[in-house]
Amino acid sequence: MVAELRKDPTTRRWSIIATDRRKRPMDFKNSPKGSDDAACPFDEGSDDLKKATVYRHWDNPKEWYVSLLPNKYPALDYEGLPKMTTRGLYTSIQSVGGHEVFVDTPRHDADLSDMSLGELEALLDAYKERYKFWTKDERIKYVIIFKNHGVDAGASLKHPHTQLAATPVVPPRVLEELEKGERYFRVKRRCIYCDLIENEISDGKRIVDITDDFIVICPFASRFPYELMILPRRHYSNFIDMTRPELSDLAKVIKGLFMQVNNVLKDPPYNLLIHVAPQYAPNLRFYHWHIEVIPRLTEVAGFEWGTGIYINPMSPEEAAETLRSK
Amino acid sequence: MVAELRKDPTTRRWSIIATDRRKRPMDFKNSPKGSDDAACPFDEGSDDLKKATVYRHWDNPKEWYVSLLPNKYPALDYEGLPKMTTRGLYTSIQSVGGHEVFVDTPRHDADLSDMSLGELEALLDAYKERYKFWTKDERIKYVIIFKNHGVDAGASLKHPHTQLAATPVVPPRVLEELEKGERYFRVKRRCIYCDLIENEISDGKRIVDITDDFIVICPFASRFPYELMILPRRHYSNFIDMTRPELSDLAKVIKGLFMQVNNVLKDPPYNLLIHVAPQYAPNLRFYHWHIEVIPRLTEVAGFEWGTGIYINPMSPEEAAETLRSK
Repeated sequence: MVAELRKDPTTRRWSIIATDRRKRPMDFKNSPKGSDDAACPFDEGSDDLKKATVYRHWDNPKEWYVSLLPNKYPALDYEGLPKMTTRGLYTSIQSVGGHEVFVDTPRHDADLSDMSLGELEALLDAYKERYKFWTKDERIKYVIIFKNHGVDAGASLKHPHTQLAATPVVPPRVLEELEKGERYFRVKRRCIYCDLIENEISDGKRIVDITDDFIVICPFASRFPYELMILPRRHYSNFIDMTRPELSDLAKVIKGLFMQVNNVLKDPPYNLLIHVAPQYAPNLRFYHWHIEVIPRLTEVAGFEWGTGIYINPMSPEEAAETLRSK
Repeated sequence: MVAELRKDPTTRRWSIIATDRRKRPMDFKNSPKGSDDAACPFDEGSDDLKKATVYRHWDNPKEWYVSLLPNKYPALDYEGLPKMTTRGLYTSIQSVGGHEVFVDTPRHDADLSDMSLGELEALLDAYKERYKFWTKDERIKYVIIFKNHGVDAGASLKHPHTQLAATPVVPPRVLEELEKGERYFRVKRRCIYCDLIENEISDGKRIVDITDDFIVICPFASRFPYELMILPRRHYSNFIDMTRPELSDLAKVIKGLFMQVNNVLKDPPYNLLIHVAPQYAPNLRFYHWHIEVIPRLTEVAGFEWGTGIYINPMSPEEAAETLRSK
């Protein structure tokens, strides 16, 4: 069955109806949970890996490399055109694009805190290569890279991996940020993220880490305990424009951050996601690419679904202080 | 500590930082789970219940009644004014309003499928009374009523209960619906929800139940398997305007629906929420109050957090057909 992007007429919200994904081992919570069985498809020697594209580190290509595979249960189809169909109130688009998986490292039991800096560099560089790859596909409006870690965060496999989705629409969450950023720029002639970084540096209370190139904060209006945001200090809106020294610095920042997170929260489930500018407008003066990390410690409940307002039982100031001290 | 509504400058999203809620037994997933212990605060004879306001059924006030209590761990404070503070990029408002709990029925082990119609009428009537009550408070812009059922849906207690939150801002999710509804009305001079109901009736495929007064559908762009929407067929935008015969019909619809849901999904965790027009504009020609039900069968993961697009492995047509057949 072809996957379909459907727009809700009363909210303009998109969903992807992807019935093929039901074959996935853990799409319903009462199905067998994401397992750590012997036949990991991301382990060396698996049949799946034979078809992989491999991205290797410049210094140590033999040990530090990332394998890229198509997602076995894609929510977006590689073939076809994003043709729009409207019937009465209802609009849908064939869900075309790409849905890929990075095997972060050949090491089955690694995670972001214990990967070597070389492994992390190879991973970030592989992200960069795929962002580049997808700029060639004109059907694609946006590329999002994200990680689900732990069963409670939606991961179906333990072996460290990252996903990439290339979508034929700009996702609403990104549109929201673009709109707010543009509105701010129109008045102030400055990037709101640049101003936010300045604010945070002068305030200090929500900083978890700061280097020459990056800053890690617990956002002022954090929705979740220990929610995190990693921002480049220099203004640029696309991951691809990160220089190699910056990339090496980011690898260090990520490793250090997840060591702190694991010290405090003992390997929590989390989602990580990267927001960049859209494919067709990669260089924006009013937008700043960034990484969001959401530890999954609390449940989203009726209040959150109904209002879009998140109740957070921990202040970001306290979260930042706790992480800093570790 | 006073709870605080904080606005994110880059997304304009609100969060409530409510550190007092951390005392709640289950605010972190690794804490002891919502338990079914002997000392249920909602069972007859508990100290908590002594302070309750009681709403009784007109026909059988002795058996069918609902107790209303303040939430023990409120995200909104009863006292104070919603004063706005701005510092640099950051805006916050004291989180004032109300946060209440309805004890749906004195019966500890009941749920919406096995409550009697009288019990359900008493519950819906209690909701109506509280909507009325809060119209008198000028600090309040919105009242949302919602239910969390099951630990995985964020419930900390098993005894059937409902929550009410009275907020000093109109929640973004509701604003979204109001904006879309108004835009549609401006062009078509019709309520989009009225048109949606007509569409669904003529299409038929997504209807789970239909009576003289209500329709239950699986929405066209369902975000989740078995997502449900209950709409009144007559146009009105506020719960308070429901007549008593309509309320009795709704009780039947809810009971029937949750019998179907339990038959198919075996008492799944779910969130239920009611969307109505805001306090200051209760009668809107472009808005239609409704109930949303979200069974919590799948995890929200990185893709959803990053895009705002939901991947749903089951079509609403299949979900509606499955529920109808039970």
